Amino acid sequence: MAARVYLDWNATTPLRPEARAAMIAAMDVVGNPSSVHAEGRAAKSLMEKARGQIAAALGADGADIVFTSGATEGAALACAGRGLHCADVEHEAVSAWCAADLAVDAAGQVAVTDPRQTALQMANSETGILLTLPEGLAVSDLTQAFGKVPFAFNWLGCDMGLVSAHKLGGPKGIGALVLRRGLDVSAQLKGGGQEMGRRAGTENLIGIAGFAAAAEAAARDLADGVWEKVAEIRNILDSALCAAANDTISVGKGASRLPNTLCLVTPGWKGETQVMQMDLAGFAVSAGSACSSGKVRASRVLRAMGFDDTAAASALRVSIGPETKEEQVLRFADAWIAQYRKARARM
Amino acid sequence: MAARVYLDWNATTPLRPEARAAMIAAMDVVGNPSSVHAEGRAAKSLMEKARGQIAAALGADGADIVFTSGATEGAALACAGRGLHCADVEHEAVSAWCAADLAVDAAGQVAVTDPRQTALQMANSETGILLTLPEGLAVSDLTQAFGKVPFAFNWLGCDMGLVSAHKLGGPKGIGALVLRRGLDVSAQLKGGGQEMGRRAGTENLIGIAGFAAAAEAAARDLADGVWEKVAEIRNILDSALCAAANDTISVGKGASRLPNTLCLVTPGWKGETQVMQMDLAGFAVSAGSACSSGKVRASRVLRAMGFDDTAAASALRVSIGPETKEEQVLRFADAWIAQYRKARARM
Repeated sequence: MAARVYLDWNATTPLRPEARAAMIAAMDVVGNPSSVHAEGRAAKSLMEKARGQIAAALGADGADIVFTSGATEGAALACAGRGLHCADVEHEAVSAWCAADLAVDAAGQVAVTDPRQTALQMANSETGILLTLPEGLAVSDLTQAFGKVPFAFNWLGCDMGLVSAHKLGGPKGIGALVLRRGLDVSAQLKGGGQEMGRRAGTENLIGIAGFAAAAEAAARDLADGVWEKVAEIRNILDSALCAAANDTISVGKGASRLPNTLCLVTPGWKGETQVMQMDLAGFAVSAGSACSSGKVRASRVLRAMGFDDTAAASALRVSIGPETKEEQVLRFADAWIAQYRKARARM
Repeated sequence: MAARVYLDWNATTPLRPEARAAMIAAMDVVGNPSSVHAEGRAAKSLMEKARGQIAAALGADGADIVFTSGATEGAALACAGRGLHCADVEHEAVSAWCAADLAVDAAGQVAVTDPRQTALQMANSETGILLTLPEGLAVSDLTQAFGKVPFAFNWLGCDMGLVSAHKLGGPKGIGALVLRRGLDVSAQLKGGGQEMGRRAGTENLIGIAGFAAAAEAAARDLADGVWEKVAEIRNILDSALCAAANDTISVGKGASRLPNTLCLVTPGWKGETQVMQMDLAGFAVSAGSACSSGKVRASRVLRAMGFDDTAAASALRVSIGPETKEEQVLRFADAWIAQYRKARARM
């Protein structure tokens, strides 16, 4: 039996070897970064080195990096209580704190009226579509873009950015809020004075070390053109599937999108069913965002782009990574096309 | 030169080998626990196994375990917006959300008037004093007690408990809120439906695996009487220091206290100075809670117990663990007594 193929990198990525090594090394660091003795200072020094590595990978030198337990916590810290607006293409961790009243066009772009009161993502997790970020945004969710497309936080002109380690080869449960220098946020976790008073609680040192190593490796891969090869493989898959399934829509095809993401809408063939059939055939793919405890519903993102409920419930997301081989996506294409034909024969 | 000796286990503990092994094993688990495919289900299964291990170690079978980024987040989730009362002996992560208006006696015990509206810790981090928990408490911070003294959450009669992995040999940055079955809390992190809607965000799977392994090992150590030997070594140190320094007060001596903690008040000899002198001599100790980014102030806890400001600023905490050897604490005693005599000669 063939080995399973993981094609759900936008949900979470395999841990990079660099992150693994950095985490194992950090396991030997005994101190609490808040302690004043040598063991505490060693822990603090490791943490501050990691902060610098992440800032460099983000193009955010001079900006403040506040470590959080992930982008969801970063979103709460950046957005809660600020009366921000967003569109329904944002991740629910952002839209939970905003009025989701901005219009989305058929290409997935958002009509921003007041950037200073808006949260807007750089890349959509479901479709991979890259959004045009106007100058002066309040918050940008950079989670899916970080490590896959080149950008420098300092050149985005936005006040705050959210990132998460596990989308670029780091561990789950660690992320950061990036703040333009001079800005502040009100702490939601209170107690100790960690993170310059912005986020109390003993820091996840092992996770931070893994995040930094992954971010550094991701930035290097990006500079080395690794994702251009990923895009080639994604495009091969895109062509193979669309050639065989002429009623399937490849969402965002032709637009700027993440190099690794393919969002296919096959109206009437439920995404949930596709995921289960592909899972049985040995492939891990997704019908949308993985962040809803296994629930699979019609995609909010696709509905916002104008797809009807049937189409929005018939989406499949294939998201690949630098380790994905052409042979693997071609095997996936064969399996998917076989199921597609059966599904169509039943309709 | 002699190897350094770590005597600050209440600030954070070395990672247990069981936790290390479990974390390294979890690094190979690729999926997101919220994904429905086989990789996601494997991640979820690991997480649920860990949840069960932690519940068992806590004596909380049937209670709900909500994973958080540590006790600080657990405190916010349990206490924020509830109008609870507490005493000034609580950790700032708890007292930040409460009216700290309950009286503390000289023995460190708290006069609780309305348990259902009170947060009360089981053990104090600075003095090690064990507090008597009345039936029906709203919240108990179990962070320092978990793994060091025997208790079963289900028998405490309190609604919610806070715990953190890094105080019992697990990694930093992971903890839990324990909820009596049937209770609920309002999520502060929103977005995905993780943790039964109580705490959104992709879970820190590697940290969770380490927490569970550490909790299981800690429970086994406790049953095996490991902490009785720790108490013997702590008592040897206590006697050695107090015999040499007759104006030094061993806080909580004779009362019920954690087996590993020694809190010494030597009026007029600043705790901060003691920490630095001991650090230079090769020993990691603390002048109080480590959670204030290196700031060392007069202890709130000791002031609440009736110590004056000078005394409350003259505290040293020595906290040891199962790995601490008698020879190490005797070396510490020699170093401390030598500095004590110099300090007294200057006064």
